Amino acid sequence: MRALWLENQQLQFRDDLPLPELGSGDVLIRPRLSGICSTDLELVNGYYPFTGIPGHEFVGDVIEAPGFPDLEGKRVVGEINITCGNCIHCQQDRGSHCVHRTVLGISGRNGVFADNFTLPAENLHIVPDSISDEQAVFTEPLAAALEIQEQINISPTDKVLILGAGRLGQLVAQTISLNDCDLAVVARYPKQRKLLEDRGIKVLEENNIAPGTMDIVVDTTGSPSGFEAARTAVRSRGTIVMKSTYAGTLEINASSLVVDEITLIGSRCGPFGPALNLIKDQLVDPVSLIEETFQITDSIAAIDKAGERGVIKILLTY
Amino acid sequence: MRALWLENQQLQFRDDLPLPELGSGDVLIRPRLSGICSTDLELVNGYYPFTGIPGHEFVGDVIEAPGFPDLEGKRVVGEINITCGNCIHCQQDRGSHCVHRTVLGISGRNGVFADNFTLPAENLHIVPDSISDEQAVFTEPLAAALEIQEQINISPTDKVLILGAGRLGQLVAQTISLNDCDLAVVARYPKQRKLLEDRGIKVLEENNIAPGTMDIVVDTTGSPSGFEAARTAVRSRGTIVMKSTYAGTLEINASSLVVDEITLIGSRCGPFGPALNLIKDQLVDPVSLIEETFQITDSIAAIDKAGERGVIKILLTY
Repeated sequence: MRALWLENQQLQFRDDLPLPELGSGDVLIRPRLSGICSTDLELVNGYYPFTGIPGHEFVGDVIEAPGFPDLEGKRVVGEINITCGNCIHCQQDRGSHCVHRTVLGISGRNGVFADNFTLPAENLHIVPDSISDEQAVFTEPLAAALEIQEQINISPTDKVLILGAGRLGQLVAQTISLNDCDLAVVARYPKQRKLLEDRGIKVLEENNIAPGTMDIVVDTTGSPSGFEAARTAVRSRGTIVMKSTYAGTLEINASSLVVDEITLIGSRCGPFGPALNLIKDQLVDPVSLIEETFQITDSIAAIDKAGERGVIKILLTY
Repeated sequence: MRALWLENQQLQFRDDLPLPELGSGDVLIRPRLSGICSTDLELVNGYYPFTGIPGHEFVGDVIEAPGFPDLEGKRVVGEINITCGNCIHCQQDRGSHCVHRTVLGISGRNGVFADNFTLPAENLHIVPDSISDEQAVFTEPLAAALEIQEQINISPTDKVLILGAGRLGQLVAQTISLNDCDLAVVARYPKQRKLLEDRGIKVLEENNIAPGTMDIVVDTTGSPSGFEAARTAVRSRGTIVMKSTYAGTLEINASSLVVDEITLIGSRCGPFGPALNLIKDQLVDPVSLIEETFQITDSIAAIDKAGERGVIKILLTY
């Protein structure tokens, strides 16, 4: 089959790969659309060691589902952590933290930038007919955005600031704007600002943030300068949500975190069911984030494009 | 008057200092006992810039209280943050984070290692007769220990680990042990371990902590190695409370905080009323932590003693 292959930080488009074998409980999926995420770019940049087929955001069709006749032929999205079911995290309903997990296209398991891939049947969610492919492909990052509200309470009186308005920042902004809080977003590029303003979301210049005034700051930049800006913006006893992949280590002033009693929270994968519901109810509009859709045969160019500054969502079709 | 004086990281015992002047709303206090805290040692080590009289833990008598006849002659303890009453933090009930605050013996205001000092009347709490001086002098650090439970919920099913069993760690252990959780403390010195075991608190060797198993870790060490041990011990989606003064910056692996969805919380000053109640109800036993009481004239020796490894509480008398 055809697939994008990553090895030693080199991408290669290949057409000589064997069909994946189905493990116990697995189904075979043919993707319709997939999305390129910042984590994919970080894999290519070598921040995490990975050899194989990247890609984890998809909507696709189940083409083989031995033992799961109800899934056969269905259009699905899928959770990306493949879990053991037995460790303390699996037993305590934290499957995405499974000690023995593999992660689709990220760690220990080939991903979706290929003609076919496998996932356990239990990871799948059937996509309602009223949701288009272009909407459904955003389920995974939208779920990740919703994870923030699984972790912290956002109240109507909260002043919330989002730093960064890229592919994940936009979804975070759309989901948090569903709360009746005082939300503002720092967006660097005109295109990003327009997307936000079209939804009535307030855009701020970074220079215009009064220091120490924000109850909650969500950093989607993943950069030391973004974290520094978050630290400056947040009030004493406020919360910083770290909603991004960060490369390397971060130097933090621990003493000032203590003196100001700041809460820092790392945030990763989230709940698929609520994400699908938001799309179905048209409470979010991920489709507006699509910049360009490339053929899988042009996936290397697609990755390059996704890495350009200010580019929002790049999709692959098959 | 006599006082310990800190200037350019040099301590000097002086007897030539003028009596402090009362500002508006202030009362004059003569300390009975005061306590030496790790923050005092860090001031001496130059981690925070401070020139003047250090010391912030005390029990004392009000000797002048113009405008506050009810306080005259009373035995009191006092909150250490002197606030403006007008800034956003004061208005939102976060007085200890007042933007314009001074802090008794720590920042912008002379402290209690002196024959007399001043505090605003509104900072004072009258000490019930049933509480001894030796108990009352622990009100401030005990309140700081209680701040943890103002910030996070500790449930009966939580596995909680405290790293460090020094002067603050012991009080944190005593207060958290009042919850019906599964508590263990890493204590380095035999004396520290005995104090904990005498109260039925489980003591763990650092080497015996299974990685990734603790729901909540409280780091009272203030050291990079303590933070590293906390990071290793905490489970995914667990919480690390930073309950100490940290010197300098801390290098953290931001990516792993995100992947494991860890919560970090800085923790500082806490509520005096509940601290006095715990002492009155004999639910804590701070007096057992006292190692030695020095005369104020020997305060330099007292500070040296408090800085020795494994030493718990050193008091000053006047």
